[in-house]
Amino acid sequence: MNATEGWMALAQRLADAAGTVIRRYFRQPIAVDDKADQSPVTIADREAEQAMRELIVQAYPDHGIFGEEHGVTQGRSGLVWVLDPIDGTRAFITGKPSFGTLIGLWEGERPILGIIDQAILNERWLGVAGRPTTLNGKPVRCRPCDAVSKAALYATAPEMFAGDTAPAFERLRQAVKLPRFGADCYAYALLASGFVDLVAEASLKPYDYAALVPVIEGAGGVTSDWQGRPLTLKSNGTVLAAGDARAHAQALALLRGR
Amino acid sequence: MNATEGWMALAQRLADAAGTVIRRYFRQPIAVDDKADQSPVTIADREAEQAMRELIVQAYPDHGIFGEEHGVTQGRSGLVWVLDPIDGTRAFITGKPSFGTLIGLWEGERPILGIIDQAILNERWLGVAGRPTTLNGKPVRCRPCDAVSKAALYATAPEMFAGDTAPAFERLRQAVKLPRFGADCYAYALLASGFVDLVAEASLKPYDYAALVPVIEGAGGVTSDWQGRPLTLKSNGTVLAAGDARAHAQALALLRGR
Repeated sequence: MNATEGWMALAQRLADAAGTVIRRYFRQPIAVDDKADQSPVTIADREAEQAMRELIVQAYPDHGIFGEEHGVTQGRSGLVWVLDPIDGTRAFITGKPSFGTLIGLWEGERPILGIIDQAILNERWLGVAGRPTTLNGKPVRCRPCDAVSKAALYATAPEMFAGDTAPAFERLRQAVKLPRFGADCYAYALLASGFVDLVAEASLKPYDYAALVPVIEGAGGVTSDWQGRPLTLKSNGTVLAAGDARAHAQALALLRGR
Repeated sequence: MNATEGWMALAQRLADAAGTVIRRYFRQPIAVDDKADQSPVTIADREAEQAMRELIVQAYPDHGIFGEEHGVTQGRSGLVWVLDPIDGTRAFITGKPSFGTLIGLWEGERPILGIIDQAILNERWLGVAGRPTTLNGKPVRCRPCDAVSKAALYATAPEMFAGDTAPAFERLRQAVKLPRFGADCYAYALLASGFVDLVAEASLKPYDYAALVPVIEGAGGVTSDWQGRPLTLKSNGTVLAAGDARAHAQALALLRGR
Protein backbone atom coordinates (compact mmCIF):
# COMPACT_ATOMS: atom_id res chain seq x y z
CA MET A 1 0.00 0.00 0.00
CA ASN A 2 1.57 3.29 -1.06
CA ALA A 3 1.10 6.55 0.83
CA THR A 4 -1.90 7.73 -1.17
CA GLU A 5 -3.70 4.46 -0.65
CA GLY A 6 -3.12 4.69 3.08
CA TRP A 7 -4.59 8.19 3.09
CA MET A 8 -7.55 7.03 1.01
CA ALA A 9 -8.23 4.21 3.45
CA LEU A 10 -8.13 6.62 6.36
CA ALA A 11 -10.40 9.10 4.57
CA GLN A 12 -12.99 6.35 4.13
CA ARG A 13 -12.77 5.53 7.84
CA LEU A 14 -13.22 9.20 8.69
CA ALA A 15 -16.38 9.36 6.59
CA ASP A 16 -17.65 6.16 8.20
CA ALA A 17 -17.05 7.59 11.67
CA ALA A 18 -18.73 10.91 10.91
CA GLY A 19 -21.66 9.10 9.31
CA THR A 20 -22.21 6.98 12.41
CA VAL A 21 -22.52 10.14 14.51
CA ILE A 22 -24.71 11.92 11.97
CA ARG A 23 -27.16 9.06 11.57
CA ARG A 24 -27.54 8.87 15.36
CA TYR A 25 -28.59 12.54 15.60
CA PHE A 26 -30.43 13.16 12.31
CA ARG A 27 -34.06 14.16 12.91
CA GLN A 28 -33.63 13.74 16.65
CA PRO A 29 -34.49 16.51 19.12
CA ILE A 30 -31.05 18.03 19.73
CA ALA A 31 -30.02 21.48 20.88
CA VAL A 32 -28.97 23.98 18.23
CA ASP A 33 -26.43 26.59 19.35
CA ASP A 34 -25.51 29.79 17.56
CA LYS A 35 -21.84 30.33 16.75
CA ALA A 36 -20.16 33.75 16.78
CA ASP A 37 -21.14 34.24 13.13
CA GLN A 38 -24.76 33.29 13.99
CA SER A 39 -24.48 30.04 12.08
CA PRO A 40 -25.95 27.02 13.87
CA VAL A 41 -23.96 24.15 15.36
CA THR A 42 -25.04 20.97 17.11
CA ILE A 43 -23.56 18.14 19.09
CA ALA A 44 -23.60 16.16 15.85
CA ASP A 45 -21.19 18.62 14.19
CA ARG A 46 -18.87 18.58 17.20
CA GLU A 47 -18.90 14.82 17.82
CA ALA A 48 -18.50 13.96 14.14
CA GLU A 49 -15.45 16.18 13.84
CA GLN A 50 -14.00 14.89 17.11
CA ALA A 51 -14.37 11.29 15.94
CA MET A 52 -12.50 12.11 12.73
CA ARG A 53 -9.73 14.02 14.52
CA GLU A 54 -9.05 11.09 16.84
CA LEU A 55 -8.66 8.70 13.92
CA ILE A 56 -6.25 11.07 12.16
CA VAL A 57 -4.08 11.55 15.24
CA GLN A 58 -3.91 7.80 15.77
CA ALA A 59 -3.00 7.03 12.16
CA TYR A 60 -0.80 10.02 11.27
CA PRO A 61 0.26 11.97 14.35
CA ASP A 62 2.41 14.29 12.23
CA HIS A 63 -0.46 15.38 9.96
CA GLY A 64 -2.11 18.74 10.48
CA ILE A 65 -5.87 19.13 10.99
CA PHE A 66 -8.09 22.10 10.13
CA GLY A 67 -11.66 21.51 11.21
CA GLU A 68 -14.69 23.79 11.21
CA GLU A 69 -15.67 23.12 14.81
CA HIS A 70 -12.43 22.42 16.67
CA GLY A 71 -9.93 24.57 14.78
CA VAL A 72 -6.34 23.98 13.72
CA THR A 73 -3.86 21.37 14.92
CA GLN A 74 -0.47 22.07 13.37
CA GLY A 75 1.37 19.12 11.86
CA ARG A 76 4.99 18.67 10.82
CA SER A 77 4.44 16.70 7.62
CA GLY A 78 3.12 19.48 5.36
CA LEU A 79 -0.06 17.45 4.99
CA VAL A 80 -3.29 18.80 6.41
CA TRP A 81 -6.75 17.26 6.75
CA VAL A 82 -9.47 19.83 6.19
CA LEU A 83 -12.75 18.78 7.78
CA ASP A 84 -16.32 19.99 7.74
CA PRO A 85 -18.26 17.39 9.71
CA ILE A 86 -21.64 18.74 8.56
CA ASP A 87 -21.55 21.15 5.64
CA GLY A 88 -25.13 22.40 5.58
CA THR A 89 -26.01 22.40 9.27
CA ARG A 90 -29.16 24.40 8.45
CA ALA A 91 -30.31 21.57 6.20
CA PHE A 92 -29.32 19.01 8.84
CA ILE A 93 -31.35 20.66 11.60
CA THR A 94 -34.39 20.97 9.36
CA GLY A 95 -34.24 17.28 8.45
CA LYS A 96 -33.24 17.73 4.81
CA PRO A 97 -30.51 15.37 3.58
CA SER A 98 -28.64 17.78 1.31
CA PHE A 99 -25.87 18.37 3.88
CA GLY A 100 -22.67 16.39 3.73
CA THR A 101 -19.44 15.53 5.46
CA LEU A 102 -16.45 17.09 3.71
CA ILE A 103 -12.99 15.60 4.09
CA GLY A 104 -10.04 17.05 2.21
CA LEU A 105 -6.35 16.23 2.33
CA TRP A 106 -3.97 18.87 1.03
CA GLU A 107 -0.19 19.15 0.82
CA GLY A 108 0.49 22.87 0.84
CA GLU A 109 -1.41 24.29 -2.12
CA ARG A 110 -1.92 20.90 -3.73
CA PRO A 111 -5.17 18.99 -3.17
CA ILE A 112 -4.54 15.27 -2.73
CA LEU A 113 -7.96 13.82 -2.05
CA GLY A 114 -11.50 14.76 -1.15
CA ILE A 115 -14.68 13.08 0.04
CA ILE A 116 -18.25 14.33 -0.06
CA ASP A 117 -20.28 11.93 2.05
CA GLN A 118 -24.06 11.96 2.44
CA ALA A 119 -24.60 9.65 5.36
CA ILE A 120 -28.40 9.47 5.18
CA LEU A 121 -28.55 8.65 1.47
CA ASN A 122 -25.44 6.43 1.73
CA GLU A 123 -23.70 8.28 -1.08
CA ARG A 124 -19.97 8.88 -1.02
CA TRP A 125 -18.04 10.75 -3.70
CA LEU A 126 -14.27 10.21 -3.57
CA GLY A 127 -11.82 12.26 -5.59
CA VAL A 128 -8.09 11.56 -5.65
CA ALA A 129 -5.56 13.59 -7.64
CA GLY A 130 -4.81 11.80 -10.89
CA ARG A 131 -7.64 9.29 -10.58
CA PRO A 132 -11.27 9.22 -11.74
CA THR A 133 -13.75 10.41 -9.14
CA THR A 134 -16.11 7.72 -7.88
CA LEU A 135 -19.56 7.59 -6.29
CA ASN A 136 -19.77 4.54 -4.05
CA GLY A 137 -16.87 3.05 -5.99
CA LYS A 138 -18.20 3.66 -9.49
CA PRO A 139 -16.60 6.31 -11.73
CA VAL A 140 -18.63 9.46 -12.35
CA ARG A 141 -18.14 12.18 -14.92
CA CYS A 142 -19.26 15.78 -15.39
CA ARG A 143 -21.49 16.41 -18.40
CA PRO A 144 -20.70 18.73 -21.32
CA CYS A 145 -22.20 22.23 -21.24
CA ASP A 146 -20.96 24.57 -23.96
CA ALA A 147 -22.97 27.65 -22.93
CA VAL A 148 -24.05 29.28 -19.69
CA SER A 149 -27.49 29.81 -21.26
CA LYS A 150 -28.00 26.02 -21.15
CA ALA A 151 -26.69 25.56 -17.63
CA ALA A 152 -28.25 24.40 -14.37
CA LEU A 153 -26.70 26.55 -11.62
CA TYR A 154 -26.80 25.91 -7.88
CA ALA A 155 -25.85 27.98 -4.86
CA THR A 156 -26.70 27.32 -1.25
CA ALA A 157 -28.52 30.54 -0.37
CA PRO A 158 -28.79 34.19 -1.45
CA GLU A 159 -27.54 35.27 2.00
CA MET A 160 -24.00 34.14 1.10
CA PHE A 161 -23.64 36.94 -1.45
CA ALA A 162 -22.80 40.33 0.04
CA GLY A 163 -21.05 43.43 -1.27
CA ASP A 164 -19.67 43.00 -4.78
CA THR A 165 -20.52 39.32 -4.96
CA ALA A 166 -24.28 39.99 -4.91
CA PRO A 167 -24.55 41.81 -8.27
CA ALA A 168 -21.92 39.49 -9.75
CA PHE A 169 -23.91 36.41 -8.80
CA GLU A 170 -27.10 38.04 -10.04
CA ARG A 171 -25.55 38.53 -13.51
CA LEU A 172 -24.76 34.84 -13.65
CA ARG A 173 -28.13 33.77 -12.23
CA GLN A 174 -29.98 35.79 -14.86
CA ALA A 175 -27.92 34.20 -17.64
CA VAL A 176 -28.42 30.52 -16.88
CA LYS A 177 -31.29 28.27 -17.87
CA LEU A 178 -32.03 26.79 -14.47
CA PRO A 179 -30.94 28.69 -11.35
CA ARG A 180 -31.60 27.03 -8.04
CA PHE A 181 -30.78 27.56 -4.39
CA GLY A 182 -30.55 25.06 -1.60
CA ALA A 183 -28.24 22.14 -2.13
CA ASP A 184 -25.23 22.83 0.12
CA CYS A 185 -22.20 20.66 -0.79
CA TYR A 186 -24.54 18.20 -2.47
CA ALA A 187 -24.66 20.56 -5.47
CA TYR A 188 -20.95 19.97 -6.13
CA ALA A 189 -21.48 16.23 -5.88
CA LEU A 190 -24.31 16.44 -8.40
CA LEU A 191 -21.99 18.46 -10.65
CA ALA A 192 -19.36 15.72 -10.43
CA SER A 193 -22.04 13.20 -11.38
CA GLY A 194 -23.13 15.19 -14.43
CA PHE A 195 -26.53 16.54 -13.30
CA VAL A 196 -25.58 20.15 -12.57
CA ASP A 197 -23.40 22.42 -14.71
CA LEU A 198 -22.33 25.26 -12.43
CA VAL A 199 -22.03 26.01 -8.74
CA ALA A 200 -21.11 29.56 -7.73
CA GLU A 201 -20.76 30.47 -4.08
CA ALA A 202 -19.13 33.09 -1.88
CA SER A 203 -18.27 33.60 1.78
CA LEU A 204 -16.87 30.07 1.93
CA LYS A 205 -14.17 28.88 4.29
CA PRO A 206 -11.41 26.43 3.31
CA TYR A 207 -13.25 23.55 5.00
CA ASP A 208 -16.26 24.32 2.75
CA TYR A 209 -14.33 23.73 -0.49
CA ALA A 210 -11.09 21.84 0.24
CA ALA A 211 -12.77 18.48 -0.34
CA LEU A 212 -14.60 19.59 -3.46
CA VAL A 213 -11.59 20.37 -5.64
CA PRO A 214 -10.31 16.79 -6.13
CA VAL A 215 -13.87 15.43 -6.43
CA ILE A 216 -14.73 17.83 -9.26
CA GLU A 217 -11.39 17.76 -11.05
CA GLY A 218 -11.32 13.97 -11.00
CA ALA A 219 -14.71 14.02 -12.73
CA GLY A 220 -13.42 16.26 -15.50
CA GLY A 221 -14.67 19.53 -14.05
CA VAL A 222 -13.01 22.83 -13.30
CA THR A 223 -12.78 24.83 -10.06
CA SER A 224 -11.46 28.31 -9.33
CA ASP A 225 -12.21 31.42 -7.37
CA TRP A 226 -14.28 34.13 -9.07
CA GLN A 227 -11.12 35.66 -10.53
CA GLY A 228 -10.25 32.37 -12.19
CA ARG A 229 -7.37 31.55 -9.87
CA PRO A 230 -6.86 28.01 -8.59
CA LEU A 231 -8.39 27.44 -5.17
CA THR A 232 -5.97 27.15 -2.28
CA LEU A 233 -6.53 27.01 1.45
CA LYS A 234 -5.88 30.77 1.42
CA SER A 235 -8.41 31.69 -1.29
CA ASN A 236 -10.85 34.56 -0.84
CA GLY A 237 -13.95 32.43 -0.26
CA THR A 238 -15.47 32.69 -3.73
CA VAL A 239 -15.83 29.40 -5.58
CA LEU A 240 -16.88 28.69 -9.15
CA ALA A 241 -17.19 25.06 -10.15
CA ALA A 242 -18.15 23.90 -13.62
CA GLY A 243 -18.49 20.58 -15.34
CA ASP A 244 -17.24 22.01 -18.64
CA ALA A 245 -14.39 24.48 -19.14
CA ARG A 246 -16.47 26.41 -21.71
CA ALA A 247 -19.26 27.08 -19.22
CA HIS A 248 -16.63 27.92 -16.63
CA ALA A 249 -15.04 30.57 -18.85
CA GLN A 250 -18.39 32.17 -19.69
CA ALA A 251 -19.54 32.13 -16.08
CA LEU A 252 -16.27 33.69 -14.99
CA ALA A 253 -16.71 36.52 -17.48
CA LEU A 254 -20.21 37.19 -16.12
CA LEU A 255 -19.03 37.12 -12.52
CA ARG A 256 -16.22 39.55 -13.38
CA GLY A 257 -18.63 41.79 -15.27
CA ARG A 258 -16.88 41.45 -18.63
CA MET B 1 -63.83 -1.41 3.97
CA ASN B 2 -65.59 1.97 4.04
CA ALA B 3 -65.30 4.52 1.26
CA THR B 4 -62.38 6.45 2.79
CA GLU B 5 -60.37 3.28 3.25
CA GLY B 6 -60.95 2.36 -0.37
CA TRP B 7 -59.68 5.77 -1.44
CA MET B 8 -56.68 5.47 0.87
CA ALA B 9 -55.79 2.10 -0.63
CA LEU B 10 -56.01 3.54 -4.12
CA ALA B 11 -53.92 6.57 -3.16
CA GLN B 12 -51.18 4.23 -1.95
CA ARG B 13 -51.30 2.33 -5.24
CA LEU B 14 -51.07 5.60 -7.16
CA ALA B 15 -47.94 6.58 -5.21
CA ASP B 16 -46.45 3.13 -5.81
CA ALA B 17 -47.11 3.42 -9.54
CA ALA B 18 -45.65 6.90 -9.81
CA GLY B 19 -42.63 5.84 -7.78
CA THR B 20 -41.92 2.94 -10.11
CA VAL B 21 -41.78 5.33 -13.06
CA ILE B 22 -39.73 7.93 -11.18
CA ARG B 23 -37.12 5.45 -9.96
CA ARG B 24 -36.70 4.18 -13.52
CA TYR B 25 -35.86 7.66 -14.87
CA PHE B 26 -34.11 9.34 -11.92
CA ARG B 27 -30.53 10.33 -12.83
CA GLN B 28 -30.91 8.79 -16.27
CA PRO B 29 -30.19 10.76 -19.45
CA ILE B 30 -33.71 11.81 -20.45
CA ALA B 31 -34.92 14.71 -22.57
CA VAL B 32 -36.15 17.82 -20.78
CA ASP B 33 -38.83 19.80 -22.61
CA ASP B 34 -39.98 23.33 -21.85
CA LYS B 35 -43.66 23.85 -21.21
CA ALA B 36 -45.54 27.00 -22.24
CA ASP B 37 -44.64 28.62 -18.91
CA GLN B 38 -40.97 27.67 -19.46
CA SER B 39 -41.07 25.12 -16.67
CA PRO B 40 -39.40 21.80 -17.49
CA VAL B 41 -41.18 18.51 -18.05
CA THR B 42 -39.90 15.02 -18.79
CA ILE B 43 -41.18 11.64 -19.82
CA ALA B 44 -41.07 10.74 -16.14
CA ASP B 45 -43.64 13.42 -15.27
CA ARG B 46 -45.92 12.35 -18.11
CA GLU B 47 -45.66 8.59 -17.58
CA ALA B 48 -46.04 8.83 -13.82
CA GLU B 49 -49.23 10.85 -14.17
CA GLN B 50 -50.57 8.57 -16.89
CA ALA B 51 -49.99 5.51 -14.70
CA MET B 52 -51.93 7.14 -11.86
CA ARG B 53 -54.79 8.25 -14.11
CA GLU B 54 -55.25 4.74 -15.46
CA LEU B 55 -55.53 3.30 -11.96
CA ILE B 56 -58.10 5.92 -10.97
CA VAL B 57 -60.23 5.33 -14.04
CA GLN B 58 -60.18 1.59 -13.42
CA ALA B 59 -61.11 1.89 -9.75
CA TYR B 60 -63.47 4.86 -9.77
CA PRO B 61 -64.64 5.73 -13.28
CA ASP B 62 -66.95 8.44 -11.91
CA HIS B 63 -64.16 10.33 -10.11
CA GLY B 64 -62.71 13.48 -11.61
CA ILE B 65 -58.98 13.93 -12.24
CA PHE B 66 -56.95 17.16 -12.32
CA GLY B 67 -53.34 16.48 -13.21
CA GLU B 68 -50.46 18.84 -13.91
CA GLU B 69 -49.41 17.19 -17.15
CA HIS B 70 -52.58 15.77 -18.70
CA GLY B 71 -55.23 18.23 -17.51
CA VAL B 72 -58.78 17.76 -16.30
CA THR B 73 -61.08 14.78 -16.65
CA GLN B 74 -64.52 15.69 -15.35
CA GLY B 75 -66.20 13.21 -13.02
CA ARG B 76 -69.81 12.87 -11.87
CA SER B 77 -69.16 12.00 -8.23
CA GLY B 78 -68.04 15.38 -6.92
CA LEU B 79 -64.74 13.76 -5.98
CA VAL B 80 -61.58 14.82 -7.76
CA TRP B 81 -58.04 13.44 -7.65
CA VAL B 82 -55.49 16.24 -7.90
CA LEU B 83 -52.13 14.97 -9.13
CA ASP B 84 -48.65 16.37 -9.47
CA PRO B 85 -46.53 13.42 -10.60
CA ILE B 86 -43.26 15.25 -9.93
CA ASP B 87 -43.53 18.41 -7.86
CA GLY B 88 -40.03 19.82 -8.21
CA THR B 89 -39.12 18.79 -11.73
CA ARG B 90 -36.10 21.13 -11.57
CA ALA B 91 -34.80 19.18 -8.58
CA PHE B 92 -35.61 15.89 -10.33
CA ILE B 93 -33.67 16.75 -13.49
CA THR B 94 -30.66 17.92 -11.47
CA GLY B 95 -30.60 14.67 -9.50
CA LYS B 96 -31.67 16.11 -6.14
CA PRO B 97 -34.25 14.05 -4.24
CA SER B 98 -36.28 16.92 -2.79
CA PHE B 99 -39.05 16.55 -5.38
CA GLY B 100 -42.12 14.50 -4.62
CA THR B 101 -45.28 12.97 -5.99
CA LEU B 102 -48.39 14.80 -4.77
CA ILE B 103 -51.73 13.05 -4.66
CA GLY B 104 -54.79 14.82 -3.27
CA LEU B 105 -58.43 13.77 -3.11
CA TRP B 106 -60.98 16.53 -2.63
CA GLU B 107 -64.75 16.63 -2.50
CA GLY B 108 -65.69 20.11 -3.61
CA GLU B 109 -63.89 22.47 -1.23
CA ARG B 110 -63.21 19.75 1.32
CA PRO B 111 -59.83 17.96 1.32
CA ILE B 112 -60.22 14.25 2.02
CA LEU B 113 -56.71 12.88 1.77
CA GLY B 114 -53.23 13.73 0.61
CA ILE B 115 -49.94 11.95 -0.05
CA ILE B 116 -46.45 13.41 -0.36
CA ASP B 117 -44.26 10.61 -1.68
CA GLN B 118 -40.49 10.76 -2.07
CA ALA B 119 -39.78 7.73 -4.19
CA ILE B 120 -35.98 7.84 -3.99
CA LEU B 121 -35.81 8.17 -0.22
CA ASN B 122 -38.77 5.79 0.23
CA GLU B 123 -40.65 8.28 2.37
CA ARG B 124 -44.42 8.61 2.16
CA TRP B 125 -46.48 11.06 4.18
CA LEU B 126 -50.21 10.29 4.25
CA GLY B 127 -52.80 12.69 5.59
CA VAL B 128 -56.48 11.80 5.88
CA ALA B 129 -59.16 14.18 7.19
CA GLY B 130 -59.82 13.41 10.85
CA ARG B 131 -56.84 11.08 11.26
CA PRO B 132 -53.25 11.60 12.36
CA THR B 133 -50.80 12.09 9.52
CA THR B 134 -48.27 9.31 9.09
CA LEU B 135 -44.79 8.93 7.59
CA ASN B 136 -44.38 5.37 6.36
CA GLY B 137 -47.21 4.35 8.66
CA LYS B 138 -45.95 6.04 11.83
CA PRO B 139 -47.72 9.14 13.19
CA VAL B 140 -45.90 12.45 12.82
CA ARG B 141 -46.59 15.77 14.47
CA CYS B 142 -45.70 19.41 13.84
CA ARG B 143 -43.54 21.05 16.50
CA PRO B 144 -44.49 24.07 18.59
CA CYS B 145 -43.22 27.47 17.48
CA ASP B 146 -44.61 30.43 19.38
CA ALA B 147 -42.81 33.18 17.47
CA VAL B 148 -41.77 33.84 13.88
CA SER B 149 -38.40 35.01 15.20
CA LYS B 150 -37.64 31.40 16.21
CA ALA B 151 -38.91 29.84 12.99
CA ALA B 152 -37.26 27.86 10.22
CA LEU B 153 -38.89 28.99 6.97
CA TYR B 154 -38.71 27.29 3.59
CA ALA B 155 -39.75 28.30 0.09
CA THR B 156 -38.84 26.65 -3.17
CA ALA B 157 -37.21 29.58 -4.98
CA PRO B 158 -37.18 33.38 -5.05
CA GLU B 159 -38.46 33.30 -8.64
CA MET B 160 -41.93 32.27 -7.41
CA PHE B 161 -42.49 35.68 -5.82
CA ALA B 162 -43.53 38.43 -8.24
CA GLY B 163 -45.47 41.66 -7.90
CA ASP B 164 -46.83 42.19 -4.39
CA THR B 165 -45.77 38.80 -3.14
CA ALA B 166 -42.06 39.64 -3.43
CA PRO B 167 -41.95 42.40 -0.76
CA ALA B 168 -44.44 40.48 1.38
CA PHE B 169 -42.27 37.37 1.36
CA GLU B 170 -39.19 39.50 2.03
CA ARG B 171 -40.79 40.90 5.20
CA LEU B 172 -41.35 37.37 6.45
CA ARG B 173 -37.93 36.15 5.38
CA GLN B 174 -36.22 38.96 7.27
CA ALA B 175 -38.20 38.16 10.43
CA VAL B 176 -37.47 34.45 10.78
CA LYS B 177 -34.47 32.79 12.38
CA LEU B 178 -33.62 30.40 9.56
CA PRO B 179 -34.80 31.22 6.02
CA ARG B 180 -33.99 28.68 3.35
CA PHE B 181 -34.81 28.06 -0.28
CA GLY B 182 -34.85 24.84 -2.20
CA ALA B 183 -36.98 22.06 -0.82
CA ASP B 184 -40.03 21.87 -3.12
CA CYS B 185 -42.90 19.90 -1.58
CA TYR B 186 -40.45 18.20 0.74
CA ALA B 187 -40.51 21.34 2.89
CA TYR B 188 -44.17 20.75 3.73
CA ALA B 189 -43.42 17.14 4.60
CA LEU B 190 -40.63 18.28 6.93
CA LEU B 191 -43.09 20.73 8.50
CA ALA B 192 -45.55 17.89 9.12
CA SER B 193 -42.72 15.93 10.74
CA GLY B 194 -41.79 18.81 13.06
CA PHE B 195 -38.47 19.95 11.55
CA VAL B 196 -39.63 23.11 9.79
CA ASP B 197 -41.97 25.79 11.18
CA LEU B 198 -43.17 27.74 8.16
CA VAL B 199 -43.47 27.35 4.41
CA ALA B 200 -44.62 30.37 2.40
CA GLU B 201 -45.00 30.12 -1.35
CA ALA B 202 -46.75 31.87 -4.21
CA SER B 203 -47.60 31.20 -7.86
CA LEU B 204 -48.78 27.71 -6.93
CA LYS B 205 -51.38 25.71 -8.81
CA PRO B 206 -54.00 23.50 -7.13
CA TYR B 207 -51.96 20.37 -7.89
CA ASP B 208 -49.04 21.96 -6.01
CA TYR B 209 -50.96 22.24 -2.72
CA ALA B 210 -54.07 20.02 -2.83
CA ALA B 211 -52.19 17.10 -1.28
CA LEU B 212 -50.46 19.20 1.34
CA VAL B 213 -53.53 20.42 3.23
CA PRO B 214 -54.59 17.08 4.76
CA VAL B 215 -50.97 16.08 5.44
CA ILE B 216 -50.28 19.26 7.41
CA GLU B 217 -53.62 19.54 9.15
CA GLY B 218 -53.47 15.89 10.26
CA ALA B 219 -50.10 16.65 11.85
CA GLY B 220 -51.55 19.54 13.85
CA GLY B 221 -50.49 22.29 11.48
CA VAL B 222 -52.34 25.13 9.79
CA THR B 223 -52.67 26.05 6.11
CA SER B 224 -54.20 29.06 4.39
CA ASP B 225 -53.61 31.49 1.58
CA TRP B 226 -51.74 34.71 2.38
CA GLN B 227 -55.00 36.40 3.35
CA GLY B 228 -55.67 33.71 5.93
CA ARG B 229 -58.48 32.05 3.98
CA PRO B 230 -58.75 28.25 3.81
CA LEU B 231 -57.16 26.80 0.71
CA THR B 232 -59.52 25.52 -1.95
CA LEU B 233 -58.92 24.31 -5.48
CA LYS B 234 -59.78 27.86 -6.56
CA SER B 235 -57.35 29.69 -4.27
CA ASN B 236 -55.09 32.43 -5.59
CA GLY B 237 -51.85 30.43 -5.52
CA THR B 238 -50.40 31.81 -2.31
CA VAL B 239 -49.86 29.25 0.45
CA LEU B 240 -48.80 29.71 4.05
CA ALA B 241 -48.28 26.56 6.10
CA ALA B 242 -47.28 26.56 9.74
CA GLY B 243 -46.74 23.92 12.37
CA ASP B 244 -48.13 26.18 15.09
CA ALA B 245 -51.13 28.52 14.87
CA ARG B 246 -49.20 31.24 16.74
CA ALA B 247 -46.43 31.31 14.13
CA HIS B 248 -49.08 31.17 11.42
CA ALA B 249 -50.86 34.26 12.77
CA GLN B 250 -47.62 36.24 13.07
CA ALA B 251 -46.43 35.20 9.62
CA LEU B 252 -49.78 36.17 8.15
CA ALA B 253 -49.54 39.62 9.69
CA LEU B 254 -46.07 40.07 8.15
CA LEU B 255 -47.22 38.86 4.74
CA ARG B 256 -50.18 41.27 4.87
CA GLY B 257 -47.93 44.12 5.99
CA ARG B 258 -49.70 44.67 9.31
